[in-house]
Amino acid sequence: MRFDVAIRNGIVLTMDESMRVLWGGSVGIEDGKISYVGRDEVRGEEEIDARGCVVMPGLINCHTHAAMTLFRNAVEDQPLEKWLKETIWPREARMKPWHVRAGARLACLEMLSSGITCFNDHYFFMEEVAGVVDESGMKAVLCEAMIELFDEERGREALRRGAEFAGRYRGWRGRIWTMLGPHAEYSCSLEFLSKVREEADRLGVGIHMHLAESRPHVEEFVRRNGVSPVKALDRIGFLKSDVILAHAIHLDDDDLRILAERDVAVSYNPVSNMKVCLGMARVDEMLRMGMRVGLGTDGPGTNNSLDLLQDLKTGALLQKLRYMDPTALPVEKAVWMATRGGALALGLRDTGSIKPGMRADVIVLDTRKPRYRPIRSPYTAATYCSTGSDTRDVIIDGRIILRDGQPQTLDPEKTIQEAEKASQDLLGE
Amino acid sequence: MRFDVAIRNGIVLTMDESMRVLWGGSVGIEDGKISYVGRDEVRGEEEIDARGCVVMPGLINCHTHAAMTLFRNAVEDQPLEKWLKETIWPREARMKPWHVRAGARLACLEMLSSGITCFNDHYFFMEEVAGVVDESGMKAVLCEAMIELFDEERGREALRRGAEFAGRYRGWRGRIWTMLGPHAEYSCSLEFLSKVREEADRLGVGIHMHLAESRPHVEEFVRRNGVSPVKALDRIGFLKSDVILAHAIHLDDDDLRILAERDVAVSYNPVSNMKVCLGMARVDEMLRMGMRVGLGTDGPGTNNSLDLLQDLKTGALLQKLRYMDPTALPVEKAVWMATRGGALALGLRDTGSIKPGMRADVIVLDTRKPRYRPIRSPYTAATYCSTGSDTRDVIIDGRIILRDGQPQTLDPEKTIQEAEKASQDLLGE
Repeated sequence: MRFDVAIRNGIVLTMDESMRVLWGGSVGIEDGKISYVGRDEVRGEEEIDARGCVVMPGLINCHTHAAMTLFRNAVEDQPLEKWLKETIWPREARMKPWHVRAGARLACLEMLSSGITCFNDHYFFMEEVAGVVDESGMKAVLCEAMIELFDEERGREALRRGAEFAGRYRGWRGRIWTMLGPHAEYSCSLEFLSKVREEADRLGVGIHMHLAESRPHVEEFVRRNGVSPVKALDRIGFLKSDVILAHAIHLDDDDLRILAERDVAVSYNPVSNMKVCLGMARVDEMLRMGMRVGLGTDGPGTNNSLDLLQDLKTGALLQKLRYMDPTALPVEKAVWMATRGGALALGLRDTGSIKPGMRADVIVLDTRKPRYRPIRSPYTAATYCSTGSDTRDVIIDGRIILRDGQPQTLDPEKTIQEAEKASQDLLGE
Repeated sequence: MRFDVAIRNGIVLTMDESMRVLWGGSVGIEDGKISYVGRDEVRGEEEIDARGCVVMPGLINCHTHAAMTLFRNAVEDQPLEKWLKETIWPREARMKPWHVRAGARLACLEMLSSGITCFNDHYFFMEEVAGVVDESGMKAVLCEAMIELFDEERGREALRRGAEFAGRYRGWRGRIWTMLGPHAEYSCSLEFLSKVREEADRLGVGIHMHLAESRPHVEEFVRRNGVSPVKALDRIGFLKSDVILAHAIHLDDDDLRILAERDVAVSYNPVSNMKVCLGMARVDEMLRMGMRVGLGTDGPGTNNSLDLLQDLKTGALLQKLRYMDPTALPVEKAVWMATRGGALALGLRDTGSIKPGMRADVIVLDTRKPRYRPIRSPYTAATYCSTGSDTRDVIIDGRIILRDGQPQTLDPEKTIQEAEKASQDLLGE
């Protein structure tokens, strides 16, 4: 059998409904889609020998602020408020489109080099990010951040810009989807969030929002509104299956039940949650309730890398600690969350598993390294032994954008140089 | 200036008393020791261009069971007791020296490939491990595990073997040190531990022991003995500066004060502690009290990799979560713990910092990758952006044992093959 791209001899984690694993498996890709998965001999215009390597769906990063690579390693070990007020916000106020372009391009280079094929981004000047996503060959769900700050005029303008971006870039180049991006329950009024809901319905796009990230913000919300953020959002009809909530840490049992009933998706961001001392999300329960939970790195400011495989280990460990139960978030569920679960959380039904008819978003991990041996369980290897640096090949829509660890779309040297220039311009040396 | 080995143009984290950082720094190595650190031009028989890379002391892995690579990825997401009783103990009972040799050699290959220059090992058939350490060019502190199980005869025999090993291999090849290895407070009687203390004093070696790892074991100990494990050990004169305790999680304030007063060292093993749901050690407090705390991977069975750089991130994050304080375990302290702190915790005064006169145990991290950029703070880069897979060069006692990511001492293919054969022999396919 001959294909556009043929992957041979891999340990294939299909992440399909039956969680089929093929040792010595082949994948055939035609017209950007998976067209064969099995054990037959495959040939192709392009061939990838995956002997000893794990072949799996591309990773989905469900929550980040890509351009914040510019703030990477800038200040460390500070309270979140101080970090935001003294380091981030004054610089963000001075940001120009070229800063965002340079920062997002570095993020794309880093993400595609570490196995991420699609990311869900929440920031400013998003048309710049769209351009970079196109250049990189990646996929992304983008939204313009809307920070109302309980100011009606500011809210109106933010919603106008957010909706304009979402309308214009929806489906752009076939690899970009859009959402509306209200910031959080503590920075947006319920009136504003109602308008966001209406606009999302009108446009037919989803909503990407931070929620219940810090306990003090949730408590403050309850004091002001008499109910929890989830209950308040439910009352105004905000919660539907097109919503993805970042963090969703401080939830009571009713909140959890409401989110499950409304089929709301959640992005679990374990590293960021630990780093800025927010707490431990109830992810194991969410998954048991059948919720769509994806994994997110959050921005490089609170991580500091964009390494979803590394975060997968931290995320699984954190759930075990959360419940003091070693059976919490088992490896199969963990890998699902980072791939198919993430895709579903973003409403992308045609990616996240390796199955005929799905888009060909596939990565190859170099599991021949000592750190993986003996492999025994490829789910375990992917969850507990891997890091992004072990990514060897990345294919998106059938196009090889990382080959033998070498980026094929973005120029690494130029990308890094420009980002460092932009970073220096904002922060100084 | 001409040396045996010259490292040029690096970002040098000296980890010396003044925590000096040199951008564009050079290191000259002569006769296995650091003989120059500065910014002058250096030349050497062997030269390493470290432009854009972080040059730092080799990592010290303060607690592991190296040969347990054989059990890597064997069973996942199980309670510790079940895992030990059903998977590990029956296999360990069948272990032969060749199994341990093969497993430990794979561990050495993995550790040296990820920047670890010295490890503190607690297992069986330790003469095999000593042989492999010698082959690999690494350094190690080794002890024969002594599990008394409150059986006097068994204890006597264990102590005889442990002492014999410690006496024979102490100082072997100039790169191996030994300790006595009583297992834990729940598997050894105080009478036995008194004898271990006497024997350690007689031989002039230290003691490496698990302590206060799980709450139920500590509570059981208190029920039996009326006081905490630390207080009981202190009463029998066990606690001296030559003791390193693995885990030391469940300590009250008095325990902590006693450990600090007795200058006892601790190995913090964050990944293992999360994975088997043991809890969060009081590391930030220990460091503030001036205690010698090192970082450990623990065995591959409960980790599953031996990647101290990856664990450094998890360990720093876990301290922030432990105290809900973003200033807990700042990056300088974190890197100190993984290098100089670890060396001091093992009683090795001549390694762990890059300073004239110290042994030349040095690693180069490839921080030119996108995930590190902009670097800004090399402490932050090492703590939050790095993983073992980014290690480029490793030098031990002035000998280059990893060069451009290629191991120079152990044969990767043969090492992996033999370990997989040994693993299959114990566990089946």
